[in-house]
Amino acid sequence: MSLPVNLLPKLLDRIAAPDGAAGLQAQWALDQLTKPQGSLGRLEELARRLSEMSGQFPPRARRCVIFTLVADHGVVAEGVSAYPQIVTTQMVENFLQGGAAVNVLARHVGAPVVVADLGVASTLPAHPGLVSRKIGLGTRNMAQGPAMTREEALAAIEAGIGLVCVERGNGLDVIGTGEMGIGNTTSASAVVAALTGAPAESVTGTGTGVDDEGRRRKIAVVTRALAVNLPDPADGIDVLAKVGGFEIAGLCGVILAGAAWRIPVVIDGFIASAAAMAAVRLKPDVRHYLIASHRSTEPGHCYVLNALELKPYLDLEMRLGEGTGSALCIGLAKAATKILGEMATFKSAGVTERSL
Amino acid sequence: MSLPVNLLPKLLDRIAAPDGAAGLQAQWALDQLTKPQGSLGRLEELARRLSEMSGQFPPRARRCVIFTLVADHGVVAEGVSAYPQIVTTQMVENFLQGGAAVNVLARHVGAPVVVADLGVASTLPAHPGLVSRKIGLGTRNMAQGPAMTREEALAAIEAGIGLVCVERGNGLDVIGTGEMGIGNTTSASAVVAALTGAPAESVTGTGTGVDDEGRRRKIAVVTRALAVNLPDPADGIDVLAKVGGFEIAGLCGVILAGAAWRIPVVIDGFIASAAAMAAVRLKPDVRHYLIASHRSTEPGHCYVLNALELKPYLDLEMRLGEGTGSALCIGLAKAATKILGEMATFKSAGVTERSL
Repeated sequence: MSLPVNLLPKLLDRIAAPDGAAGLQAQWALDQLTKPQGSLGRLEELARRLSEMSGQFPPRARRCVIFTLVADHGVVAEGVSAYPQIVTTQMVENFLQGGAAVNVLARHVGAPVVVADLGVASTLPAHPGLVSRKIGLGTRNMAQGPAMTREEALAAIEAGIGLVCVERGNGLDVIGTGEMGIGNTTSASAVVAALTGAPAESVTGTGTGVDDEGRRRKIAVVTRALAVNLPDPADGIDVLAKVGGFEIAGLCGVILAGAAWRIPVVIDGFIASAAAMAAVRLKPDVRHYLIASHRSTEPGHCYVLNALELKPYLDLEMRLGEGTGSALCIGLAKAATKILGEMATFKSAGVTERSL
Repeated sequence: MSLPVNLLPKLLDRIAAPDGAAGLQAQWALDQLTKPQGSLGRLEELARRLSEMSGQFPPRARRCVIFTLVADHGVVAEGVSAYPQIVTTQMVENFLQGGAAVNVLARHVGAPVVVADLGVASTLPAHPGLVSRKIGLGTRNMAQGPAMTREEALAAIEAGIGLVCVERGNGLDVIGTGEMGIGNTTSASAVVAALTGAPAESVTGTGTGVDDEGRRRKIAVVTRALAVNLPDPADGIDVLAKVGGFEIAGLCGVILAGAAWRIPVVIDGFIASAAAMAAVRLKPDVRHYLIASHRSTEPGHCYVLNALELKPYLDLEMRLGEGTGSALCIGLAKAATKILGEMATFKSAGVTERSL
């Protein structure tokens, strides 16, 4: 389970600025299509960015895979969630049966979902649809000490990288991030507060739906976790280890792998964005490979999007996670690539270009 | 071509408030699904509204049809468009060949496109994919007198109603609006200014992409058209006749038919929203059957959305029309109905409900 000594630095070394030339080619092609230039707005921007990121023209969004990573959080002992911890285990079963929201929306856009156990607090029965990459039976309670060791954080990152490796073998045009884990908005808030220096109350919301008192408790727990662990904001791995979660660290690995192999990465909601911020801290160029799917109602999400200078494509007041925002955004990414692939040009359709 | 004397009043009489009971049933069902209540945000709202509008539970979005109505505008003589009038004719051919943006996005979401000639300024060859409902060879120049007669406006409305009638015979769950016609942002600006009393400069934009001088010319033309024709803001038909377009009046008919038969109507961009505003002026309850797809960059669009109290689901800085925004929104409507149709409930999946 241990990371080969030099893998992560080597992976980080691979991450470079995107391919501006491919983006220019995409924009030139978009400008030949039978529509006023730029009139498809951010759909054109998305097509152009997919080209820049992948270095490919035309950009592709045929095989888009959503990685839904699941783990439990010791911090639930502090009463930070509206749901009991057993729901994490139950939801894995729901994902495997195809009955969760992410399954429905992923089917809607034709994207497979990879469900991976990064550290659920129960022993899950084997299932052909479940990838087991368990680092532990849930993290420890970050309000009392580090959620995990540095080695565990690295193992979770490595597991995320490995998930992308496997899917890349089948062709992987776009990565969608997703997660589930009772208590993980609290961990994500702590990660974002640690990385940005933002006060806990600015980046801590109601999660699955705690009341005002519950939110105050979450804020106090985040504040305590930061005071107890003193994570080093310059060190993404230290932050993930001390106040993160196995699935958050795993998503950090998924995101790093996407950036390293030039596969565009769709960021889901608040928790995935916390993982993205950690990945960007490890290597700033990761930012260029991120696509913000939607704007969550979690207050911390907006904070991260601003910090990463990302503008989401959807604003549907969602706050579910799992990869539901990624799925909807993958639908838009597919649409953007089809615009380039299927629309007629002024020349091919014999349409007169602008006269004024 | 003339409207049977009492058809339009009878159609308007059919339009009533939506079915709140069906909406409540949808919300109850949404609250049983394996997700925190309300966590899918506006996707849930969309599912609920589809139920309210159609009076059906579960709501359906299986057969969604985009009606792309095309016509020419005499006002192009004033130099209000960046493109020559012949582009309207050429784009009809492009729609029929499937190479326009709306074709690509409609295919992406599995929605057929009905292309109807309401008054293109050329005689189009017959084509199995083209519905001919030509009222005239383009409208007259509204800067010099009424764009059309009241009888022509009524005939265009009737034509739009007829299009919905035909498709309803094949099953029609959701209507998407769309249009094309060189010069039609100028007509739409005049319609919106007439109906709302807004100053021309607040509701007149750059359309397909005129420069600042072009926009000033458009504003002057809109101002002159209103002064010359003095449309009666209380009379939607008078406004459509004097400063509208055949496709705008036709879309007004499509929208009225949708509301009368309780078929949810997705409003595309600025021009479709002008048609919607005229339809609401004819019968205020029409408003309940409208779904705003996206927020266009045309300044008048925001104005209409606010006036109709509609909040769009997408904000992609698009400004193309044709039904492109409708297509993307139909994708969301299908997703919303699948959430209700395919997600597991807490009970069916054996997931524990919230404990706090």
